[in-house]
Amino acid sequence: MNGPGTESPQRDDTGLERLLFFSDAVFAIAITLLVLDIKVPEPAAAGSAAALGRALWELIPKFFAFVVSFGAIGYCWFMHHTMFRYVRRCDDGLIGTNLLLLLVVAFLPFPVALFGSFRHQAPAVIFYACSLAATGLFQSRMWWYATRGRRLVDPGLDRHTVRLLHLQMLAVPAVLAVSIPLNFVNPTWSVLCWILVVPALRIVTRRMRRQAAAATAEN
Amino acid sequence: MNGPGTESPQRDDTGLERLLFFSDAVFAIAITLLVLDIKVPEPAAAGSAAALGRALWELIPKFFAFVVSFGAIGYCWFMHHTMFRYVRRCDDGLIGTNLLLLLVVAFLPFPVALFGSFRHQAPAVIFYACSLAATGLFQSRMWWYATRGRRLVDPGLDRHTVRLLHLQMLAVPAVLAVSIPLNFVNPTWSVLCWILVVPALRIVTRRMRRQAAAATAEN
Amino acid sequence: MNGPGTESPQRDDTGLERLLFFSDAVFAIAITLLVLDIKVPEPAAAGSAAALGRALWELIPKFFAFVVSFGAIGYCWFMHHTMFRYVRRCDDGLIGTNLLLLLVVAFLPFPVALFGSFRHQAPAVIFYACSLAATGLFQSRMWWYATRGRRLVDPGLDRHTVRLLHLQMLAVPAVLAVSIPLNFVNPTWSVLCWILVVPALRIVTRRMRRQAAAATAEN
Amino acid sequence: MNGPGTESPQRDDTGLERLLFFSDAVFAIAITLLVLDIKVPEPAAAGSAAALGRALWELIPKFFAFVVSFGAIGYCWFMHHTMFRYVRRCDDGLIGTNLLLLLVVAFLPFPVALFGSFRHQAPAVIFYACSLAATGLFQSRMWWYATRGRRLVDPGLDRHTVRLLHLQMLAVPAVLAVSIPLNFVNPTWSVLCWILVVPALRIVTRRMRRQAAAATAEN
Repeated sequence: MNGPGTESPQRDDTGLERLLFFSDAVFAIAITLLVLDIKVPEPAAAGSAAALGRALWELIPKFFAFVVSFGAIGYCWFMHHTMFRYVRRCDDGLIGTNLLLLLVVAFLPFPVALFGSFRHQAPAVIFYACSLAATGLFQSRMWWYATRGRRLVDPGLDRHTVRLLHLQMLAVPAVLAVSIPLNFVNPTWSVLCWILVVPALRIVTRRMRRQAAAATAEN
Repeated sequence: MNGPGTESPQRDDTGLERLLFFSDAVFAIAITLLVLDIKVPEPAAAGSAAALGRALWELIPKFFAFVVSFGAIGYCWFMHHTMFRYVRRCDDGLIGTNLLLLLVVAFLPFPVALFGSFRHQAPAVIFYACSLAATGLFQSRMWWYATRGRRLVDPGLDRHTVRLLHLQMLAVPAVLAVSIPLNFVNPTWSVLCWILVVPALRIVTRRMRRQAAAATAEN
Repeated sequence: MNGPGTESPQRDDTGLERLLFFSDAVFAIAITLLVLDIKVPEPAAAGSAAALGRALWELIPKFFAFVVSFGAIGYCWFMHHTMFRYVRRCDDGLIGTNLLLLLVVAFLPFPVALFGSFRHQAPAVIFYACSLAATGLFQSRMWWYATRGRRLVDPGLDRHTVRLLHLQMLAVPAVLAVSIPLNFVNPTWSVLCWILVVPALRIVTRRMRRQAAAATAEN
Repeated sequence: MNGPGTESPQRDDTGLERLLFFSDAVFAIAITLLVLDIKVPEPAAAGSAAALGRALWELIPKFFAFVVSFGAIGYCWFMHHTMFRYVRRCDDGLIGTNLLLLLVVAFLPFPVALFGSFRHQAPAVIFYACSLAATGLFQSRMWWYATRGRRLVDPGLDRHTVRLLHLQMLAVPAVLAVSIPLNFVNPTWSVLCWILVVPALRIVTRRMRRQAAAATAEN
């Protein structure tokens, strides 16, 4: 009765806990490795206090890349956290799609370092934007897998929440998709365009709260 | 009924557990990356036993920076641990303020490396002091967020404890704020001034125990 | 009665949880360190957008090594996860065999980096293949230890599941063992041969489901 | 009533869990960072298959240092795991002594790298031996703190177990203390002397089982 035959595609609570645990650790390591890309100035180039101050000043784009990337990975973790509030069960397919998402997350320190070094060059900006977009796409794919037929989530989960989580996950890729062609015109505009993510997310969140409240009121 | 409409700003126990988990992992990685800044001497500069001994001797300031920084991150983790003894619930705002705190914690290996390389130069010492101060400020901000109107903590939490945790969180930034102007006079004095943190914390802790005991006696 | 005399070789639930926790963290770190091997192109070699694009293009073998290695460690974690669905108890021997497995996992970033740098040279390919094979062998050893006499697993666990988990753990080493002599003939064929892992695993999984279903039907 | 006044020095179960969690993460990161010290051979020095094979052969001392250090950190984690089977409560002092232990553990990658680079030189061997010895001493200090007056452990814990855990924790430092003066005579002998740790631990473990069994029989 305890054989895997019947329960093979379904895993128990400990399985779900370990999945979250492993994912959290990968997110935490990827987000902490970002700082390794900010190198201390060379002693030769920072002989005096003024020279060291200048050297720190020149690192500001690196700090900017660190904050943006920390925000991107942090947002991805936050959406993972939000998604798993609704997930109740875990099967091999969910573990597989989760590993695909973690593949992209664990890869992010490379595009971040690339963007930090070549932020004025189209290939680096595009590569970075595509990598961030991939996290949203894989996350949306995972949410789609979990909610299809309400297989792995609470059966009572309303369709507004399902749809709005997709929107929240895809808002970042969508803005990035706009920014990529813009990059050929002007790389700086492309970066500024990312600031559109903030109001886009606010609109989506507000709409989410309103629709879900209406759905609750109807019941 | 299980939709997110009603419970949207409140997250459940698993949510709080994952928040702590993710935070602990970021603290642990940041505290362990500190050692990467201590480089093994070059083979050329350590040909004989005496030369290797001298090379190790010259690393003592690096060891000092490692211990101070380990203490600072460890203390920050300890206060995070203390704070979450009282936190009962978790909402999106708490996750956000926690991510801001982790942003500073994950950034710390850079100022630590900077301080290790340029400990006699004002910009490096100031940069390091500001980074450590920021951890205290963000932590106090988070505690303020959690306790405002007793939203996320135990409703019976007395105001002495609330205030004294703020003091414990801000004691480090306060001493650092004194040390920063001192740094322009003499960087060595500035570093020595940090040793004031130890008695400052002892006074705060003693006062905390006394007031809380008095509050308990009154009830 | 609470002395360790009677329960010495058996550890409680918390012990098992910490074992999984520690293992998950080692897997997560090893899988995230892989990206540190992909270095950003030198500024000198990437002056123009075209040059940067070419430099990224030349990194494709590194990306390939990253994906293969991520898959290998991820698969190893997945089998660890599968194995511990059946493990109920934990003793010192299990902790020991688990530490041996983690030794190999923590070592993997080195053969991965070696393979990324010298993928056309027999010693690097063989070293990498042996390292991956070792993970399967140690995992199978651990599963053998846990299931011998059903000591640490559910006593009702059927022998089909035991045998098929061994097959799943050893499928990767088996294909790699074929690829190693092939490597002396042609390193590229050897790499292509690894793609055989995918159908090999599919056959094993299908057989596993069928046999376990038959076993369940018999009872 | 929920104020910290009465319960201030005692922390609850979640506190103990987070302490273990944080410690496990630090152990896991320290043990995984060891591999970063093994560098891939330079492309120039590994032009042919034979040259690459020779370069790998020359890395054997590095592999040896990796395995020894993995064993040392793994043993330290194992003793931490063993100790916390008996710990039931957690106070600020235990967190403090635990942070001191983690300070040494997080520092270990440096002496490991030093030993890997200069294994024939007395200062490197001594520095490495002292660092490993420190883990045992701090661990024993922690166990002493937890068991003094049975404050934080199960009150029924028998004194044989208390004493034998001390012996197990100190066996490694004791053998290392012998190896350090030996090092001035001959560094190679000193390293070989570490192999004495294995029978020393076996004797201690056997004695532990026998005495604890006798204590159980008496009751």
